[in-house]
Amino acid sequence: MTSDAILIASGPWDPVPWAAAVRALAPGRAVHIWPDLPDPERVGYLMAWQPPPEAFRAVPNLKAIFSLGAGVERIVFVDDLPDVPIARIVSDDLTQRMTEWVVLQVLLHHRRQLAYLDLQRARRWEELRQPAASEVRVGMMGLGVLGADAAEPLVRLGFQVAGWSRSPKTLPGVEGYSGADGLDAFLARTDILVCLLPLTHETRHILLMDLFGKLARDGALGGPVVINAGRGGLQVEADIAAAIGQGVLKGASLDVFETEPLDPASPLWGLDNVVITPHVAAFSDPKALTGQILDQIAAFEAGKPLKNLVDRAARY
Amino acid sequence: MTSDAILIASGPWDPVPWAAAVRALAPGRAVHIWPDLPDPERVGYLMAWQPPPEAFRAVPNLKAIFSLGAGVERIVFVDDLPDVPIARIVSDDLTQRMTEWVVLQVLLHHRRQLAYLDLQRARRWEELRQPAASEVRVGMMGLGVLGADAAEPLVRLGFQVAGWSRSPKTLPGVEGYSGADGLDAFLARTDILVCLLPLTHETRHILLMDLFGKLARDGALGGPVVINAGRGGLQVEADIAAAIGQGVLKGASLDVFETEPLDPASPLWGLDNVVITPHVAAFSDPKALTGQILDQIAAFEAGKPLKNLVDRAARY
Repeated sequence: MTSDAILIASGPWDPVPWAAAVRALAPGRAVHIWPDLPDPERVGYLMAWQPPPEAFRAVPNLKAIFSLGAGVERIVFVDDLPDVPIARIVSDDLTQRMTEWVVLQVLLHHRRQLAYLDLQRARRWEELRQPAASEVRVGMMGLGVLGADAAEPLVRLGFQVAGWSRSPKTLPGVEGYSGADGLDAFLARTDILVCLLPLTHETRHILLMDLFGKLARDGALGGPVVINAGRGGLQVEADIAAAIGQGVLKGASLDVFETEPLDPASPLWGLDNVVITPHVAAFSDPKALTGQILDQIAAFEAGKPLKNLVDRAARY
Repeated sequence: MTSDAILIASGPWDPVPWAAAVRALAPGRAVHIWPDLPDPERVGYLMAWQPPPEAFRAVPNLKAIFSLGAGVERIVFVDDLPDVPIARIVSDDLTQRMTEWVVLQVLLHHRRQLAYLDLQRARRWEELRQPAASEVRVGMMGLGVLGADAAEPLVRLGFQVAGWSRSPKTLPGVEGYSGADGLDAFLARTDILVCLLPLTHETRHILLMDLFGKLARDGALGGPVVINAGRGGLQVEADIAAAIGQGVLKGASLDVFETEPLDPASPLWGLDNVVITPHVAAFSDPKALTGQILDQIAAFEAGKPLKNLVDRAARY
């Protein structure tokens, strides 16, 4: 029996390290890199990151799709998506990297590190007012694996942490809000908003001026801060720039953008108290993640259910 | 019976908020601010931060000394120090603030945030190599209340954490090294050195070129980083500048200095990959801390032992 081949369609990412990792870990398994497809009918599995829609149509006998990253919006919104299970990456490595980035950005705004770096450049010794973490309210928008993990060290550091999610969730030390009805109350108590939502029709452009205006204005930081490491499509960048300019927002940290790479002409690069990183908060390490996908395939072929399945109805 | 008066000698700190906090919390207790001392014989307690040595000699009936900050070297090294108990501040507020600063600085170097800020100023979208926390070895020098507390979230974030202390200590998830015999092995496995030692004759100028040269050179960060929030007297600043210049150190974060405020002419301000903050990592909030001191005095007057006593023999 010949085993099903794997097709790698990794969009903007270099597919070669993924193919190399498959070959190293499963030498008997045929692996192809889109669009090089010598035998389309033999492809049973797609390892995909922002794949071109044609890739799905080119492989008639697909059995399962494995997303190489945490976001699956470029898979679940494809027209005529084959009716096969879609599994997402849930990787401790990726989760830990995201948590590092979120904790860093929260502390950077909380501790006024950008202002201290400005003072350092001016060789000025000047103490700035510093609230305790217990005076600062962090709001996690999205409590999936990533949001829940990032909340934990923030609770440990003493912040008042709340979370907002589509359906109610209970996490230790995290005040829970949920649904459209709970959003305004969640925003009204939030000084630092951390957005780790999936990108869906409901969440697209959720980070806009109207939402920024609902964040807490009386907080210990002197104005609200928005941190987005979810997806660029969650934010309206013109509104972020306007909100910073008008003082509706005090600061922001952005790792994702509506169009990547971010245009050198974008005003976001030069805004006061705004940190820009080039979509590096978390990333998928081929070596660390390919083993997980091959384990899933082995279990699937042994008749076991796939883990970390995407909810096709909810689109994430 | 008239109760013993309190004398506040707060060196470079403004004594007024401390006196106000005493008056608010213990209205019946006489409180004086050095050198305004109408009735020296009535002073039973000294609330002290870097007090002038004369203050000790001026009050013949002293019963106990309360340090207003975590470091006590400006008390325990005073000649003819009265033979009374010395209690240090152990405050959750101060500890949490220190932990925030340490975690921020570790993550800032780990995640190459200074390099990303440089790229942002140049409007350049460029991904930098990023090891996982599990590849990076943090070494905590000093495992007192502050060092032990800061180690905990660093373990949670996935760093390989070790600690070095005078006597062996066991902390969850922290590899233990101790004593002069253990120092070189501790340094050889350390990529990010966090110094929270007390300042004693043994630790003065411990952070010098010789020590920097013993840190790990093969680490995932491409060179060792030193973070000092202990005491300025622990470091030789000329050696830090030379080590950065020569590549012996890759980076540093310094909150404390040999002379404070740091001279505008100091080369430290302008070094590559060095963060300078003006002794703000943690601070003593008079409102939060005075209650603790008054509780200690009440217990002491009821015949109970003082908590958080300084070891006069060890000088910290």
